[in-house]
Amino acid sequence: MDAAGNLRGTYPAARQNAPRLLIGSHLDTVPNAGAYDGILGVILAVALLEELRGRRLPFSIEVVGFSEEEGVRFGTPFIGSRVLVGRLDEELLDLQDAQGVSVRRAIEKFGLNPAELPQAELENDTLCYLEFHIEQGPVLARLNQPLAAVEAIAGQSRMEFTFVGRANHAGTTPMDLRCDAIAGAAEWIGAVERAAQSVPGLVATIGKVEAKPGAANVIVAEARLTLDVRHGSDDMRTRAVDNLIRQAKEIAARRGLSVHESTLLSQRAVTMDPFLTAEIERAIVESGCKPHRMVSGAGHDAMILAEKVPAAMIFLRTPGGISHDPAESVAVEDVEKALECGMHLLDQLASSPEFQKRMNRA
Amino acid sequence: MDAAGNLRGTYPAARQNAPRLLIGSHLDTVPNAGAYDGILGVILAVALLEELRGRRLPFSIEVVGFSEEEGVRFGTPFIGSRVLVGRLDEELLDLQDAQGVSVRRAIEKFGLNPAELPQAELENDTLCYLEFHIEQGPVLARLNQPLAAVEAIAGQSRMEFTFVGRANHAGTTPMDLRCDAIAGAAEWIGAVERAAQSVPGLVATIGKVEAKPGAANVIVAEARLTLDVRHGSDDMRTRAVDNLIRQAKEIAARRGLSVHESTLLSQRAVTMDPFLTAEIERAIVESGCKPHRMVSGAGHDAMILAEKVPAAMIFLRTPGGISHDPAESVAVEDVEKALECGMHLLDQLASSPEFQKRMNRA
Repeated sequence: MDAAGNLRGTYPAARQNAPRLLIGSHLDTVPNAGAYDGILGVILAVALLEELRGRRLPFSIEVVGFSEEEGVRFGTPFIGSRVLVGRLDEELLDLQDAQGVSVRRAIEKFGLNPAELPQAELENDTLCYLEFHIEQGPVLARLNQPLAAVEAIAGQSRMEFTFVGRANHAGTTPMDLRCDAIAGAAEWIGAVERAAQSVPGLVATIGKVEAKPGAANVIVAEARLTLDVRHGSDDMRTRAVDNLIRQAKEIAARRGLSVHESTLLSQRAVTMDPFLTAEIERAIVESGCKPHRMVSGAGHDAMILAEKVPAAMIFLRTPGGISHDPAESVAVEDVEKALECGMHLLDQLASSPEFQKRMNRA
Repeated sequence: MDAAGNLRGTYPAARQNAPRLLIGSHLDTVPNAGAYDGILGVILAVALLEELRGRRLPFSIEVVGFSEEEGVRFGTPFIGSRVLVGRLDEELLDLQDAQGVSVRRAIEKFGLNPAELPQAELENDTLCYLEFHIEQGPVLARLNQPLAAVEAIAGQSRMEFTFVGRANHAGTTPMDLRCDAIAGAAEWIGAVERAAQSVPGLVATIGKVEAKPGAANVIVAEARLTLDVRHGSDDMRTRAVDNLIRQAKEIAARRGLSVHESTLLSQRAVTMDPFLTAEIERAIVESGCKPHRMVSGAGHDAMILAEKVPAAMIFLRTPGGISHDPAESVAVEDVEKALECGMHLLDQLASSPEFQKRMNRA
């Protein structure tokens, strides 16, 4: 266990001082969750080592089970994996949970030493990071395919929009004399949906809606909404966001409302390593499955690791797309296919001239 | 003061045992309110009597200042005026405020006797009820006219609609695989607005909107909205409501959502007495103003009194339509016009053959 609480174990290579390949995922999940989000990727890594039955490869394999990926306790995700890329700074260590316990104090209370965090950082001999994870979406279930290669993790914009009109009596204010904030917001929600439907791969979500004053007989004076926009291409995403801001302003102006927006989060897309992604696709085919490439709409530890080393991901089909829910599930046959795919991938990498070059450089 | 806390005083007629005319409005208002809603109508009644300077009319005039019109304390409006029409039953007397004090107990604590409530009921010699009230809407301000005759108090339907879809991850769920409750609700909010705009006199308001689970990165599974629909014609109102229910079901079905609705309130429109309304219109003209007839979108004590006696109302212009707000105001000139109109009305009634017939019957 490193100083961030990540569980790490190494399966040795055929020779001493060989570079290492990381395989992992996270150990934690959300409250009232299912049994597979995160932990299945750690179990699959361990199972791959078991399948090797002592056979040595030209690289060592380090299995990592990351702590605190979800961000439930401290409100910020990827704490475990950030430590590996040297990004757990003082500000992050000072973050507090609901009881006022800081990340630093939580690490100490767990019996670990925050001063040793730098020793948890990735070694220079690290070749790449691989991660198995359930898709947590309905795409593979809809395609009726067990596995996909993840080519990128979508960038994300999270914003808040507030439409402001005028509260007035629901009975005494004729329709043409209203400045109804929820009517304007509703028109814009429709525009958000149409915009996302018109661009392949784009998703846009209105998740929170608050209407004030919030009385049945009073016209809504203020409607506050969150907008979540994601796409594999940062350019497509920022263009979509700009378009939605413009539409909000047009709708507001036409209705005598004002609107203001603020950006809560703007996170760039992260491309997975193209060589590894192609090898994963090949391994999927070798396992007897149809290949599929997709963009992950959710963030993963692989996104953090990619800051320092080539990273790649394999998605497993999630029945019904249901995740972060006790009904989350995965088919035993799909796990078997993932394991088979993983074995093919390790064999491919062990014999790949391109990977040999990477090993020589490490 | 009667047993319901209504303040009542009588200005005598030219002869003993003459029938009586009621003029009044309510004494209470809402928290954080303005200075005119209700009380202006009581003050105007008193001012009219002052203006008579002792001159006697063929009818007595009882001024009534009603208690508890707004329904703030016990959640139900018109408590004072209901007593006059004999509608304060046991159920109503048992209603409790936030501290668990019943209407009955509140009356007792105020030093009054609930057993005497029946004595507060209207006498058989009551000719009619007249009420001055601020419009609490923007119509007269927009028309630039100080006064209007109220021809009806709108009927009202209050309902709750719940659209149910499926919560899902905002990043991993493609647009075409979503059952987004807020997107469906937003489409319907647009339909509500268009429906109300297309029927003269119809108003429809979405005042409360709740979206669950209410997280920025989760598709909305449940959207709950209130709908308030009002019109002077019950037929127009119920047709509009039926149409909106049908549209909600169509939108939900097309989007793979379910929707269910419940009725919280269905209150019939109340027509003001046509003879009195015509006399008010004439008195407005006599005062040098342009006549205007309108439907009141808000409920008033006159609506309750109309159950037992002919009732009529005069609206005063409300600058900006602002009411239930400290900024509520009224122009001194408009109050002067209302007083002038009231004097003309009393003179007209005193000399009207039709009113004479009514007096003979009382």
